[in-house]
Amino acid sequence: MSAVLVHDAYGKSLVRLTKVTRHADRHELKELAVDIQLEGEFAAAYTAGDNSRLVATDTMKNTVYALAKGHPLRDIESFGQTLARHFLDNNAHVASARIHIVEHAWRRIEVQGRDHPHAFLGGGAEKRTMTVSLTRQGLHIESGIDDLLLLKTTDSAFRGFLRDRFTTLPETDDRIFATILKADWLYGPDAADWNDCHRTIRQALLETFAQHKSLGVQQTLFAMGVAALASCPQIEEIRIAMPNKHRLLVNLQVFGMENANEIFVATDEPHGLITGTMRRGQ
Amino acid sequence: MSAVLVHDAYGKSLVRLTKVTRHADRHELKELAVDIQLEGEFAAAYTAGDNSRLVATDTMKNTVYALAKGHPLRDIESFGQTLARHFLDNNAHVASARIHIVEHAWRRIEVQGRDHPHAFLGGGAEKRTMTVSLTRQGLHIESGIDDLLLLKTTDSAFRGFLRDRFTTLPETDDRIFATILKADWLYGPDAADWNDCHRTIRQALLETFAQHKSLGVQQTLFAMGVAALASCPQIEEIRIAMPNKHRLLVNLQVFGMENANEIFVATDEPHGLITGTMRRGQ
Amino acid sequence: MSAVLVHDAYGKSLVRLTKVTRHADRHELKELAVDIQLEGEFAAAYTAGDNSRLVATDTMKNTVYALAKGHPLRDIESFGQTLARHFLDNNAHVASARIHIVEHAWRRIEVQGRDHPHAFLGGGAEKRTMTVSLTRQGLHIESGIDDLLLLKTTDSAFRGFLRDRFTTLPETDDRIFATILKADWLYGPDAADWNDCHRTIRQALLETFAQHKSLGVQQTLFAMGVAALASCPQIEEIRIAMPNKHRLLVNLQVFGMENANEIFVATDEPHGLITGTMRRGQ
Amino acid sequence: MSAVLVHDAYGKSLVRLTKVTRHADRHELKELAVDIQLEGEFAAAYTAGDNSRLVATDTMKNTVYALAKGHPLRDIESFGQTLARHFLDNNAHVASARIHIVEHAWRRIEVQGRDHPHAFLGGGAEKRTMTVSLTRQGLHIESGIDDLLLLKTTDSAFRGFLRDRFTTLPETDDRIFATILKADWLYGPDAADWNDCHRTIRQALLETFAQHKSLGVQQTLFAMGVAALASCPQIEEIRIAMPNKHRLLVNLQVFGMENANEIFVATDEPHGLITGTMRRGQ
Repeated sequence: MSAVLVHDAYGKSLVRLTKVTRHADRHELKELAVDIQLEGEFAAAYTAGDNSRLVATDTMKNTVYALAKGHPLRDIESFGQTLARHFLDNNAHVASARIHIVEHAWRRIEVQGRDHPHAFLGGGAEKRTMTVSLTRQGLHIESGIDDLLLLKTTDSAFRGFLRDRFTTLPETDDRIFATILKADWLYGPDAADWNDCHRTIRQALLETFAQHKSLGVQQTLFAMGVAALASCPQIEEIRIAMPNKHRLLVNLQVFGMENANEIFVATDEPHGLITGTMRRGQ
Repeated sequence: MSAVLVHDAYGKSLVRLTKVTRHADRHELKELAVDIQLEGEFAAAYTAGDNSRLVATDTMKNTVYALAKGHPLRDIESFGQTLARHFLDNNAHVASARIHIVEHAWRRIEVQGRDHPHAFLGGGAEKRTMTVSLTRQGLHIESGIDDLLLLKTTDSAFRGFLRDRFTTLPETDDRIFATILKADWLYGPDAADWNDCHRTIRQALLETFAQHKSLGVQQTLFAMGVAALASCPQIEEIRIAMPNKHRLLVNLQVFGMENANEIFVATDEPHGLITGTMRRGQ
Repeated sequence: MSAVLVHDAYGKSLVRLTKVTRHADRHELKELAVDIQLEGEFAAAYTAGDNSRLVATDTMKNTVYALAKGHPLRDIESFGQTLARHFLDNNAHVASARIHIVEHAWRRIEVQGRDHPHAFLGGGAEKRTMTVSLTRQGLHIESGIDDLLLLKTTDSAFRGFLRDRFTTLPETDDRIFATILKADWLYGPDAADWNDCHRTIRQALLETFAQHKSLGVQQTLFAMGVAALASCPQIEEIRIAMPNKHRLLVNLQVFGMENANEIFVATDEPHGLITGTMRRGQ
Repeated sequence: MSAVLVHDAYGKSLVRLTKVTRHADRHELKELAVDIQLEGEFAAAYTAGDNSRLVATDTMKNTVYALAKGHPLRDIESFGQTLARHFLDNNAHVASARIHIVEHAWRRIEVQGRDHPHAFLGGGAEKRTMTVSLTRQGLHIESGIDDLLLLKTTDSAFRGFLRDRFTTLPETDDRIFATILKADWLYGPDAADWNDCHRTIRQALLETFAQHKSLGVQQTLFAMGVAALASCPQIEEIRIAMPNKHRLLVNLQVFGMENANEIFVATDEPHGLITGTMRRGQ
């Protein structure tokens, strides 16, 4: 029997970088986790144990720290590009570099109503993310938001769905809508201010979620995607995943009480998972 | 051989409650996880399988939902007391009830600069906690904060520590100080406004962390405890645990670069763990 | 601005099923977590809130339990197919169903050297997995193993890799090789005994890992894939991902001790991540 | 206001140690996570920033690796004592050392039916644990088991429990009993073979769980504790915690099907939590 290697990639994951930029009047803090994956002429390492073309993953880790030293880190998108270009520019046998960065947010501690110059508290579960895919042919940049918990207590219905012999779910005009948003948007060829786009798209997603009269998670997801595309002309496409983190009405009637949409149990398992990709129309 | 049962307790954990209070102009949202543990005359269940005095843990779960219906849930401390009293008042054979509640925070989504009346986003990893211990003899109420990430980029030194043959750590005048705060404070007999106390103590902890010129985690922890006690006269004692979530300076000299306290690697393992309990002096 | 929906899918995740089959002399236990994702004519739900073609995700959950009742559950691959076919057979507007199942293993407790007929202990982190993708055009079945921890204490070198200005890693002839295996193999059109194949492939992966004189993770990964393909003629392709869970030699020289490859620190972050896909040659 | 420090302790957590002992014919592998907590005359560090008596937690970490070099690591109990004694013997101002060790099990890979000399696979979620508390007055050694998943499909009833107005749980003669065992036993003054005791106690716990005709989790927990005490004369006391990881019968009647105790949904939240401490009688 013979076997052929039809695909391969390797790299370093979870390179955790903290950078402090020390201005006279305040410090800037960035905390990132960087994943690197390279593709290229690495087959000999797999098939023959010939490592001569392997950039050691330990070297990739070092590269993150060394390049972070000279980079302003204003946004993760430009740092991701710097990293990707480094691997292609310095290694003719590397065909593509994929850099994925997760940024963990910190907020300044307020002391007597004013932002402290060098003390921070954790910014929560929400993460800003970025994936650069650089090949010899071109560059793709996707940015995103992950783990953003959203919940609305009304303006959410679910009616008129298909009923079959296994359907027991009652229709409802007013349920809690809770989710953990993941959204990834693809930038087009025009230059973008990554921080502005992130802020604008995030706000469009939040406002649409809040204000939408939802007939279903699918409909709200689409409305959010449309709003995101409208908010930032530099993006071409947005992909959204929204689990339905159910809050189930508790039956209080057995205790002689009415539950007027007040008392719920939150469940993580099982959960719905709704996804959609929206692209700018012509 | 004979064996005796020298201690026993049982209950229900992770009862997840969502309560929505629907005012005309806005909705209030509370999300809690409730743990219940009872002690009392339950030995026969252990030694003889006689369950006649066991409150089923399923009944405890139902009780959380039923009592939440009639409770305003302005603060978790009063709801915890209501739950604890229920179990003692209705069961003469229950000697003590311990109710532990974790509150997961939600913030309102801002739409065009104004808080939305019924749409929320997740408040982050930080939790507000509370433990009521009610016996036939008395009541203890502890409140707390958990999983509050804190980081300061300067004003933190660590010098003059004991050196032995296994010591390799260099002294430093300027390191990053990062931690995940857990603090629990014990209320005295005087009535307290639990929400005010939580807010005041939290702010005292944050401000002290930010402004302290730290000579070590121990010293900052003590200063934070002192400030907390000073901020809220109703508390008698505060217990603080602060892991030292190290940010290690990366050696860039091997690449011919200077690392002027700029580039760090964040590590979770191993971590220091510093604890202290401070009590109001006489 | 106009926006178009270019892709959509939805379903239910983490439907946790326990099935007990009660034979006269012993009980069989299966514990699964099932994810379902459907594609089809669902666009109206997204763009117009028209839910009339939506199979509610709650109905999907019910379907798992109802179909599990009549299914022997001898292997997850056949149950996955039954579920996928159900959704396509009963819904002309469903174009594809993707069923992903994770099986959590249980082993029988040994009592006086013999397997107990109805008492079990947890089988560990390792999971057996399966993904069926059924469309109107055809069927793909992938099976796999996930979270299988592997470690060898010798027969692992890493030498001759590329060195650039950021390389500091020394070459080594003898290091610990630790990983958490994920492998997924694609079945060809011929009928397979899924349980036999799983057992055979798993053993081939384990034996090859154990016996390979590794010149690098890449080389061992390829050898393992080749062995898996050789062990089971019914599979066409195998995809393997192996993180390099580093065990770093501790420097004991500073304490006047020699570390003869004995004392290591285990780290989770950062970690190498090596992937490869091997296909049966012609 | 004045505040006093009424308790303090500090140390290092999650020091991850891998030790390989290289015999001619086979390698032994131990992987541990060590937590150290010291108490003593450390108040000046808290109240005055005087670190002169602080053993740096980094030094504690180094100490684990250095002492592991010279220790056979046959069992974690003796290594824990070695560590504890080190801190008291070398620091007159240290009043107590508490060492907690978690051992992650590895099993040998079988190759052609025989244990491989140096290749291992992960031993599962179950952990062996140990806590030594050493003071100038004496020594306490507790050993334990954690995260041991257990499930029996029959011989488990729950009847005759107290019913109040919030009780809805039906009585049952035959339910699934699933738990994640945590057990900790206290050794008496007589020398013990720690590995033998661990093996014997574990087997007693498993066999009793399997064979007990359970009238409730409490009764089974007590029986397991009694059996553990009987199995190993060197222990004086055992503390057991058993969450009730519910498997709930799925209602299939709505689909016209009977569910003869076959189809269940596994839930993690909420869960019962039953604890008990058993001591050897006189």
